[in-house]
Amino acid sequence: MINVFPITCRRRNEKRGRKEKEGYIIFTLLSFRHNYKFLHFCNLIIIRQVLAFRDIAPQAPTHIVIIPKVKDGLTGLNKAEERHCEILGHLLYVTKLIAKQEGLDDGFRVVINDGPNGCQSVFHLHLHLIGGRQMNWPPG
Amino acid sequence: MINVFPITCRRRNEKRGRKEKEGYIIFTLLSFRHNYKFLHFCNLIIIRQVLAFRDIAPQAPTHIVIIPKVKDGLTGLNKAEERHCEILGHLLYVTKLIAKQEGLDDGFRVVINDGPNGCQSVFHLHLHLIGGRQMNWPPG
Repeated sequence: MINVFPITCRRRNEKRGRKEKEGYIIFTLLSFRHNYKFLHFCNLIIIRQVLAFRDIAPQAPTHIVIIPKVKDGLTGLNKAEERHCEILGHLLYVTKLIAKQEGLDDGFRVVINDGPNGCQSVFHLHLHLIGGRQMNWPPG
Repeated sequence: MINVFPITCRRRNEKRGRKEKEGYIIFTLLSFRHNYKFLHFCNLIIIRQVLAFRDIAPQAPTHIVIIPKVKDGLTGLNKAEERHCEILGHLLYVTKLIAKQEGLDDGFRVVINDGPNGCQSVFHLHLHLIGGRQMNWPPG
């Protein structure tokens, strides 16, 4: 059984106006340094192999980014190999748990961007969980 | 190793103007009858536990729907349980394989709609693979 804890704690230096770099900092820590010592200051949750935090440029009242802690070659979904199936399934399952935790009972949308046509901007596989408003179609 | 075959074969009765019901028919077959005997007439591929077919209302030059063959309670992602992790991971991995097969080397977007806020219209978990054009942000 996986327990999901609320995403409530805040970055210590938020008052210093550095909140906008939060997502970037997390990706950097994970990608280049694997240094988790600052992570508990951030607005995030960590569930087994998965890490989640609020998007710094939210597109809806709830907008959370979910990533594997260890990149393991997954710069994007296009790099997935059969050995990644476990972490991919875990990412989607945790996304559902977070949606429930966030009270998105009226629905939500999960988006994975890949490559330039998909608007991917950070090359560490990540899922966007978006909810709290009526989403439109087409999806961008 | 999973082999992906091109989505090339066409529904037999396409010329009778029933193409627009293709997606609906597939979902119906899977959901209510588990009758696969007509599936080889459709514009789809079947990879182990996963089935894929072109969206009947495409939002881009490439728009493919990927679903688990057996619903197993997954009317939507919000119904996922820990036991579904394997099929969830497999769905994402097959999505990547199909993206490669379709030549989406410039990128793509994967979308999962859940519930009314997410614009979900068919209650059998499905992923949208969308590519072949520049996607926009926000995603709907």
